[in-house]
Amino acid sequence: MAENHNTLRLKHLGIDTYKEAVIYMRKDCHICRSEGFEAQARVLVSLNNRHILATLNIFENTLLAPNEATLSNYAWDLLQAQPGDIIQLSHPQPLLSLSYMRAKVYGNTLNKDEISNIITDITQGYYSDIEVAAFLAACTGKGLNPAEIIDLTQAMVEAGTRLHWNAAVVVDKHCVGGLPGNRTSLIVVPIVTAFGLMMPKTSSRAITSPAGTADTMEVLAPVNLDVASMRKVVAQENGCIIWGGAVSLSPTDDILIRIENALDIDSEGQLVASVLSKKIAAGSTHVIIDIPIGKTAKVRDQAAAEQLKNQLITVGKKLGINICTLFTDGSQPIGNGIGPALEAHDVLAVLQNKTNAPADLKERALLIASEVLEFSQQIKPGTGRQLAEQLLASGKAWQKFQAICEAQGGMRTPPKATFTHIVTAKQAGKITAINNRRLAKIAKLAGAPQAKAAGVELLIKADVVVEKQQPLFTIHAETRGELAYALSYIEQGNHIFVMEPS
Amino acid sequence: MAENHNTLRLKHLGIDTYKEAVIYMRKDCHICRSEGFEAQARVLVSLNNRHILATLNIFENTLLAPNEATLSNYAWDLLQAQPGDIIQLSHPQPLLSLSYMRAKVYGNTLNKDEISNIITDITQGYYSDIEVAAFLAACTGKGLNPAEIIDLTQAMVEAGTRLHWNAAVVVDKHCVGGLPGNRTSLIVVPIVTAFGLMMPKTSSRAITSPAGTADTMEVLAPVNLDVASMRKVVAQENGCIIWGGAVSLSPTDDILIRIENALDIDSEGQLVASVLSKKIAAGSTHVIIDIPIGKTAKVRDQAAAEQLKNQLITVGKKLGINICTLFTDGSQPIGNGIGPALEAHDVLAVLQNKTNAPADLKERALLIASEVLEFSQQIKPGTGRQLAEQLLASGKAWQKFQAICEAQGGMRTPPKATFTHIVTAKQAGKITAINNRRLAKIAKLAGAPQAKAAGVELLIKADVVVEKQQPLFTIHAETRGELAYALSYIEQGNHIFVMEPS
Repeated sequence: MAENHNTLRLKHLGIDTYKEAVIYMRKDCHICRSEGFEAQARVLVSLNNRHILATLNIFENTLLAPNEATLSNYAWDLLQAQPGDIIQLSHPQPLLSLSYMRAKVYGNTLNKDEISNIITDITQGYYSDIEVAAFLAACTGKGLNPAEIIDLTQAMVEAGTRLHWNAAVVVDKHCVGGLPGNRTSLIVVPIVTAFGLMMPKTSSRAITSPAGTADTMEVLAPVNLDVASMRKVVAQENGCIIWGGAVSLSPTDDILIRIENALDIDSEGQLVASVLSKKIAAGSTHVIIDIPIGKTAKVRDQAAAEQLKNQLITVGKKLGINICTLFTDGSQPIGNGIGPALEAHDVLAVLQNKTNAPADLKERALLIASEVLEFSQQIKPGTGRQLAEQLLASGKAWQKFQAICEAQGGMRTPPKATFTHIVTAKQAGKITAINNRRLAKIAKLAGAPQAKAAGVELLIKADVVVEKQQPLFTIHAETRGELAYALSYIEQGNHIFVMEPS
Repeated sequence: MAENHNTLRLKHLGIDTYKEAVIYMRKDCHICRSEGFEAQARVLVSLNNRHILATLNIFENTLLAPNEATLSNYAWDLLQAQPGDIIQLSHPQPLLSLSYMRAKVYGNTLNKDEISNIITDITQGYYSDIEVAAFLAACTGKGLNPAEIIDLTQAMVEAGTRLHWNAAVVVDKHCVGGLPGNRTSLIVVPIVTAFGLMMPKTSSRAITSPAGTADTMEVLAPVNLDVASMRKVVAQENGCIIWGGAVSLSPTDDILIRIENALDIDSEGQLVASVLSKKIAAGSTHVIIDIPIGKTAKVRDQAAAEQLKNQLITVGKKLGINICTLFTDGSQPIGNGIGPALEAHDVLAVLQNKTNAPADLKERALLIASEVLEFSQQIKPGTGRQLAEQLLASGKAWQKFQAICEAQGGMRTPPKATFTHIVTAKQAGKITAINNRRLAKIAKLAGAPQAKAAGVELLIKADVVVEKQQPLFTIHAETRGELAYALSYIEQGNHIFVMEPS
């Protein structure tokens, strides 16, 4: 094929499609005609021996000159392209792994190689969003058998960086999620590492929540460390709390989670593979997995929790990682703050042993830290709790936290919001439940996590009797407009509290 | 909510995303911040009491002024928007039908109302592409039981126009597809309507093939008729051959087929619903369905054909439409031409009883016409064939075809290509099979169906012994570049013929 006929010059327009590679070409483009490309076609785009598959969108002729094309930001990054670069375009060869994806859609069982092929191609950005969606839909429900979940987990580990540490026991914790404010990691890591266990924690940013652990940590210290910097911090402090995205652990997971969130599908097999692949890739040997159970949490009942527990332990054992699960109360948020800075305030209050520190956050963190500590062979079973309390009460955990922050680049002071508004009770009564999802929504409308100081500060918790006009929570926002949005959501009748009139 | 804070002015940029509604907003847009919208969010866009759900893409600030947004062409059409219009933006309420979609993904059975809800929302453009993809993936394989296929078919009929005709017997034919050049409809309709049966034929344009029946008919007469014009033609001539898209029969089908094609998934349940919903919506009472069987056709073996036949007949009976199936040879193209004008030449040669008319196209058309004619109660069983031959040989079918073309707006002369190239045999041997898919690909690379005169003209068929250097087929193209693309595909080693050396 006369390859030089198939080139276009890249113009930068700055189009954010999140993680979908899109190429934009002119309507009268000679390549579209000669290759028979139409809108939504999948196109192989090549530059300097890098190749991506992109979805074609067609621009009318005003935005691009003849012989020009542009890319979505994600595609620029994948190709490491610069404006003015000359790209090559052609029909892609059919991806072999798409035939395995289709086999799964038709209900067939996949073997290890087939799953590995799919994951490799997804990770390289070769799948369109609808292809990922079809694969995920096919994996949901009874879509994956236990052997397939194991193979999927393994394939996701192998698709990214895998860290190895010079220690027999490398601990970690994970929370299955759905509870706003649940920032135990920032307390567990300093307790455990102050004792001397190794806990190199990588965590995620918010996807659909008002703050991820990495977002909250970022208001206290830099989290955007690469592998070399991470190793330095861990060598010095036994642990760290950084953003996992920068070290590329199980990178496939980000792509899958994005589509799962958009579809609002929680495939159990995918959840197990997602959690365990990140932990195995991080080099962990012993992991506590916190499974909050609650009507508005991710896991809604005991039966679902039991099934998830069994899957996690079975797959973990097969892949050589020791998993313990904890079932916890997921009926309301943990701590008072929801949003990066407000959560950071809660964490600091617990670490600094302040009298107004949220008791539930402290208790949950101690519970998890106790279990993590007992992974150490130097500790007698049953003594983890006492040890965790000592490490916290003595200030050793607080010292360690400060040292970790310094090692990651320097401790920061959390910002405060310019605008606040107190929401009060419209009637007296007993609060019987708190809707985690709606509370998270309000924090997001107020600006979290982009606006670090924004969010919600709970002033009461469930099982409390309130008077009419009693303050229930404070909305924090960095702009007046965002505050108004959060308030209007409440005014539309989205009740946060379930109340029993007194 | 202060609604006037949530408005933007529409700028026209002309972005073709095919059938996905996309809204493009500035990175610093106040609505994105206040509503917490990020790239890929689903946004409710409203204008003059029309509402659509669109996927958000973010532009850097150079393409849009503050307070401006733009839409994909599909979204402009759905909203019937004009540049300068002020649109309202907000968070959409969760779609109820998405919970049914998820139930199907989790493997549950859906009832009639749930399926109807999903189809209504998809038809209104409320589903994103990945949501449609997840639904289709969940319906594939054993995804739909017989009752669900019936409900799906019914829902797809109800989502669009439904035609009713003043006749007890309204006939139609359909080919399950995958065979290039198979333009029997253009011969069957005039034979059957010349006899006096009513056959108001609506057909599709090419989606992934080098020509749809509507594309081929369009080189001979206008096909873009609305319902009123269609009724006039049918009242006068007993039949027509028009494009179904303009009369909005089973409009959901276009959306589903687009995603099925992109995923290369052929769900049997979807195929049955697709075919039957179009026929029922068109008001047909008796339909012949041609199922070509061949290794490179859509239906690859006898068992698959039998299963499809049973589904079609069962669902048809339940929905009050009489279905007969024909299994035919799908091992090679029917007729010599592939591409709109080349296929039209074949059709004209058959209708005009030319001696060089392709015998296989004539035979296939007579076979189908015989079966269709026997739907008439005025015909004794077994006499359809003789009648069909008479109607064709006597020139009555040719007269009727011309009359239909005139009634549709005037008969046209098919164009001829400027550039042709004859591909010859590299060695002597016997042709044992022809790859339908690769041949279709060459015709598309040469420019079909957009370039009406482009395509492939077969000079030999299977089971023929050829000499070295003997001409095999001619490529027709309207531009030199397209001819070169078609040739380079062959040079890359994509063999069209399976040959047995002699």
